[in-house]
Amino acid sequence: MNKSAFYALSYGVYVCTSWDEGRPVGCIANSAMQITSSPATIAVSLNHDNYTNACVRATGRFAIAVLGEHADPKLIGKFGFSSSKDTDKFEGTPYAVRGKMPVIDGCVSWFSCKVVDTMETGTHTVFLGEVLDCDVLLSDTPMTYAYYHKVLKGKTAANAPTYQEEKGSGKYVCRICKYEYDGKVPFEELPDDWTCPICGAPKSQFEKK
Amino acid sequence: MNKSAFYALSYGVYVCTSWDEGRPVGCIANSAMQITSSPATIAVSLNHDNYTNACVRATGRFAIAVLGEHADPKLIGKFGFSSSKDTDKFEGTPYAVRGKMPVIDGCVSWFSCKVVDTMETGTHTVFLGEVLDCDVLLSDTPMTYAYYHKVLKGKTAANAPTYQEEKGSGKYVCRICKYEYDGKVPFEELPDDWTCPICGAPKSQFEKK
Repeated sequence: MNKSAFYALSYGVYVCTSWDEGRPVGCIANSAMQITSSPATIAVSLNHDNYTNACVRATGRFAIAVLGEHADPKLIGKFGFSSSKDTDKFEGTPYAVRGKMPVIDGCVSWFSCKVVDTMETGTHTVFLGEVLDCDVLLSDTPMTYAYYHKVLKGKTAANAPTYQEEKGSGKYVCRICKYEYDGKVPFEELPDDWTCPICGAPKSQFEKK
Repeated sequence: MNKSAFYALSYGVYVCTSWDEGRPVGCIANSAMQITSSPATIAVSLNHDNYTNACVRATGRFAIAVLGEHADPKLIGKFGFSSSKDTDKFEGTPYAVRGKMPVIDGCVSWFSCKVVDTMETGTHTVFLGEVLDCDVLLSDTPMTYAYYHKVLKGKTAANAPTYQEEKGSGKYVCRICKYEYDGKVPFEELPDDWTCPICGAPKSQFEKK
């Protein structure tokens, strides 16, 4: 089995959100897809370790916001590499309640969904959501996972379905979000106040891989 | 509800195959995604009306082949806009048995899967497959659904999860596969033996929308 085969599957980059007793929570999801068109339903896969999973289960509601190529990469660092359990990811993140759900500003489109079925696996839950409301917010090319990897040089959280172990590259990699520095200026020559473009971690959080 | 929101979801273009009593069958799928990484599982959504759905159900096996941007667009016409019930889609389509499943030649990568769970909806079945074997065949950029629409000017089969009714465009559209002619030469001036680049239908099968 050659696991590189999995890199050829195409995904978008989404922020999946829910409520935790009135507090907005969310995480990055790549595995989301429309299942039926009438009624419109979307399936999203969330790791059991994602705090958002428990909140979607408890409330029976989730929203999906589609990130565009011009979205702030720090959103991915914030929503993809920390937990809503101990972090208020919405602190400093502009959002609005749309379709009764928290939806981050600046997304291409959003969907407000009611869970109508679930499928359990050893590590992830697939939530099937009926779309109660949806809209387009912004004219931007939806970000694909390939774009995130190739253009933004982004990496994959260990609890993502799409995670595969990556080999040493000799490059400087962020310990927090796994962003791989690939700029023209040698890493050693970057200013001391330089921070990770994905998660905002300081230069000291980078290590050579 | 603004259904244009659904166009922002990202998908690949896949050929999902199975066996019908020893005969290879298959159809185009867009809704496929990795669900877990250990063990590796993939979910694929197939319409109840797809003959391949019944074959996956009967055999408990399916394969996914990832089409690249350089795949022959006629493959999409053949596998996406006719039924394996009354057509031998593999007639004239080079393929090999890989991981005990029929896999078309020239795909970027393939996965041979065993069904471990299903989720039913009104129109589609979501099959969860454990990946028994997979490999990379070709170095090509995986085709995204957006590429198929924008670059190949392809349309969506009415039984796809991603189907939305499309508005009149004033352009010539193939009755068989819904390909929208957008070439520099006016449609009327195309040679009589010109055929649809997606499904191979003759010029007479085009109508003005």
